[in-house]
Amino acid sequence: MAQEKATAGARISELKLPSRSEDFSEWYNQLVLRAELADYAPVRGCMIVRPYGWALWENIQQALDRRFKATGHVNAAFPLLIPRSFIEKEKSHVTGFSPPPMETIIGHAYAKWIQSYRDLPVLINLWNSVVRWELRTRLFLRTLEFFWQEGHTAHATFEEAEAETRQMLEIYADFAATDAAIPVIPGRKSEAERFAGADQTYSIEAMMGDGKALQAGTSHNLGQNFAKAFEIRYLDKEGKLQYCWTTSWGLSTRFIGAIIMVHGDDQGLILPPRLAPFQAVIVPIFKSDEEKAAVMERARKLRGELAAAGVRVTSDEREGLSPGYKFNDWEMRGVPLRVEIGPKDVAKGTVVLARRDNPGREGKSSVSQDGLAGAVARMLDGIQTALYQRALAFREANTREPASYAEFKAAVETGFAISHWCGGSKCEEQIKEETKATMRCIPLEQSGQPGRCIRCGEPATEKAIFARAY
Amino acid sequence: MAQEKATAGARISELKLPSRSEDFSEWYNQLVLRAELADYAPVRGCMIVRPYGWALWENIQQALDRRFKATGHVNAAFPLLIPRSFIEKEKSHVTGFSPPPMETIIGHAYAKWIQSYRDLPVLINLWNSVVRWELRTRLFLRTLEFFWQEGHTAHATFEEAEAETRQMLEIYADFAATDAAIPVIPGRKSEAERFAGADQTYSIEAMMGDGKALQAGTSHNLGQNFAKAFEIRYLDKEGKLQYCWTTSWGLSTRFIGAIIMVHGDDQGLILPPRLAPFQAVIVPIFKSDEEKAAVMERARKLRGELAAAGVRVTSDEREGLSPGYKFNDWEMRGVPLRVEIGPKDVAKGTVVLARRDNPGREGKSSVSQDGLAGAVARMLDGIQTALYQRALAFREANTREPASYAEFKAAVETGFAISHWCGGSKCEEQIKEETKATMRCIPLEQSGQPGRCIRCGEPATEKAIFARAY
Repeated sequence: MAQEKATAGARISELKLPSRSEDFSEWYNQLVLRAELADYAPVRGCMIVRPYGWALWENIQQALDRRFKATGHVNAAFPLLIPRSFIEKEKSHVTGFSPPPMETIIGHAYAKWIQSYRDLPVLINLWNSVVRWELRTRLFLRTLEFFWQEGHTAHATFEEAEAETRQMLEIYADFAATDAAIPVIPGRKSEAERFAGADQTYSIEAMMGDGKALQAGTSHNLGQNFAKAFEIRYLDKEGKLQYCWTTSWGLSTRFIGAIIMVHGDDQGLILPPRLAPFQAVIVPIFKSDEEKAAVMERARKLRGELAAAGVRVTSDEREGLSPGYKFNDWEMRGVPLRVEIGPKDVAKGTVVLARRDNPGREGKSSVSQDGLAGAVARMLDGIQTALYQRALAFREANTREPASYAEFKAAVETGFAISHWCGGSKCEEQIKEETKATMRCIPLEQSGQPGRCIRCGEPATEKAIFARAY
Repeated sequence: MAQEKATAGARISELKLPSRSEDFSEWYNQLVLRAELADYAPVRGCMIVRPYGWALWENIQQALDRRFKATGHVNAAFPLLIPRSFIEKEKSHVTGFSPPPMETIIGHAYAKWIQSYRDLPVLINLWNSVVRWELRTRLFLRTLEFFWQEGHTAHATFEEAEAETRQMLEIYADFAATDAAIPVIPGRKSEAERFAGADQTYSIEAMMGDGKALQAGTSHNLGQNFAKAFEIRYLDKEGKLQYCWTTSWGLSTRFIGAIIMVHGDDQGLILPPRLAPFQAVIVPIFKSDEEKAAVMERARKLRGELAAAGVRVTSDEREGLSPGYKFNDWEMRGVPLRVEIGPKDVAKGTVVLARRDNPGREGKSSVSQDGLAGAVARMLDGIQTALYQRALAFREANTREPASYAEFKAAVETGFAISHWCGGSKCEEQIKEETKATMRCIPLEQSGQPGRCIRCGEPATEKAIFARAY
């Protein structure tokens, strides 16, 4: 027992995180490891996604997959290995479109499968991992191998492909807001930031807790470029051979980085209830064996009731660890709601609910054990909403519409600048050089008010978001 | 319309399969392609799992994953890339245990994560793909890359590891019987067939439609071999450093091959309702536009009712294809139940249900549209049971207990032989040479009656299953 306590003591001190405001970057790195979301793999720049991180990814997968299937998409799996000849072929595309390796296999298959208009649309999504060279890596944000989904669709007309591209962008935005409690700005990329081979690239952009932007999902209208590179053609109803119009869209484990950086605090993660592997954790509190028996019995009963009501709940029955240690431990892991139950609660028929988004006394309330599942469900809904509102308020507080280029420079030091932009890549480049901010997107929602480019002063019809980015 | 009919005609003729009894192997190869379960990838020996095949695999994944999680397992993801030094280290293991690449990364991580008895057991499962060299390949059965799950667990004692190994074997057997309608024989492998590095390998063995055996899942008790190779140790309650006891277990897309070969017939696939991507397909039948309007309206209403009741249902609304073409097409794809609805059915308030496991008039029945969901659910249960019973009866009819080695040789020409075996690898080798049959497993269920080895005549205490195998 003495040894157990010593171990517990050692662990608590290990759990101290650097402060988020003092060193955001180091806070992030340590949090990922200490919450056991991921670990460094023995190959530089690769990661092991640990069970807790993978459970979070599985919930993200389900939330997206449900939406993909509801809009008619199906999943498939393409092989890891591609012929050497494909890699060599890539370099010589007359269209100037040099697709990543996986896309050459997909192009090859679609050219074979698609013969007539009857075979369209093809609406395939893949859940897999990709390996890409990266010089500087960070867990979830930038690794040599990352996990994602990639959708690849083929259509008979430009209009259908564009509608698909926009539909998937909307799905990403809805998932981010509804499930991840992250407000995002859906918009168009500039030509410079566009995916090679795309006629149009759209993205959702989110503001992290340090005011920087993170591109959290992309959707590309590939026009006929991809179809021409791979000879993906179909016989139309009139018997004429036509090139297909294709799209691709993806969201990756990078999104986990966004969840961490948008919601987390100095105590650790804060997970949105809809995606949290555990939505609630029961912590039994007792001193004597007699107290333990009564508390554990009640804790198990309540756990059963919560689980039966569909709450993802766990109970921390670890021996030899103090309640305080357990509180810290689950706060680090971001479980949205803690259910404390001690001997007094057993006697009174109550429990204490402690909200992760509002640590300390303020977020605590004593509620009846009767109808606990209902109270928990309501509080989880409340936390989900509160996290979204807080993230939105933070983004609004850190988004400025600068009146001058000097104000613009100041704005992108701490957040987003939304400014008229002439659309020229020269201004885009100069802004990047002078401020380190990149053109994140031209929001789909525009006031329509004309103005003058923040950099060159020429007339401009659209506003764009500029920010430093991950 | 004329062109559409011509296309349909061409497709029907394409759909003719070789007969299962005449050329089982070619029947299998063509069926996989024509049911659009998988396709050959441009790299020799690799496969693309097409959406219909992947939907089947997703249902297999869910059926297994539910069982894994109910027994305390969690999923994670390990990287594709491993350091070159690991590959070199593999060759020099003093224990003589040369693990596959993925296991070196897992060993490395477990050695880091596991410190004390508090960290045990570790119950991790991975859903991923593996690349292995194969000379002769066949879709699903043997490909360079295949999809699977691999469980890797670490325990404090031998007893716990053995209990885990057996538990996972039981889970595989239960999944095969309950969800895939495939009766399997759970048993121990011989030393020769054991996984390198395992103290004990268990497998489930199933009989295919040609009488050959297929190993459909394996579970290994690795003893302390794996832990010693990677220095996976823990401090026990007394503060002493101990090696862990580990297990591993896997089931792959090979299992799809088993489903095809156990249940399929000359018309194509027959999928067990619990795993079928579509459990029922509605085929509307009409001639005039007036009939079409009435039939389609009713078909859509019924589709909605079935879907609301949890039936995985689709409706074949393709234009320009005859009902006969559609019947063949869905039979090829193995949808367990077809719901036919024509103008007379609309008038009478009935539909015709046609069972895939009993093609032709015999399997057809007219039922009321009222309460259709209940009737469909009952019939799907009936099909699930019938498929299992049929597979079991087939296996029993083709399993012999030969009285002599001559009878043994005849038995393994067409099915399984169950015979006393001395346990010697010499007899095992000779049997393989002389009959092409391998020792599949020593069934866990034994009568306990002693006897004499079928090959050498020496006393033997256990019976083993011998068969030619995939």
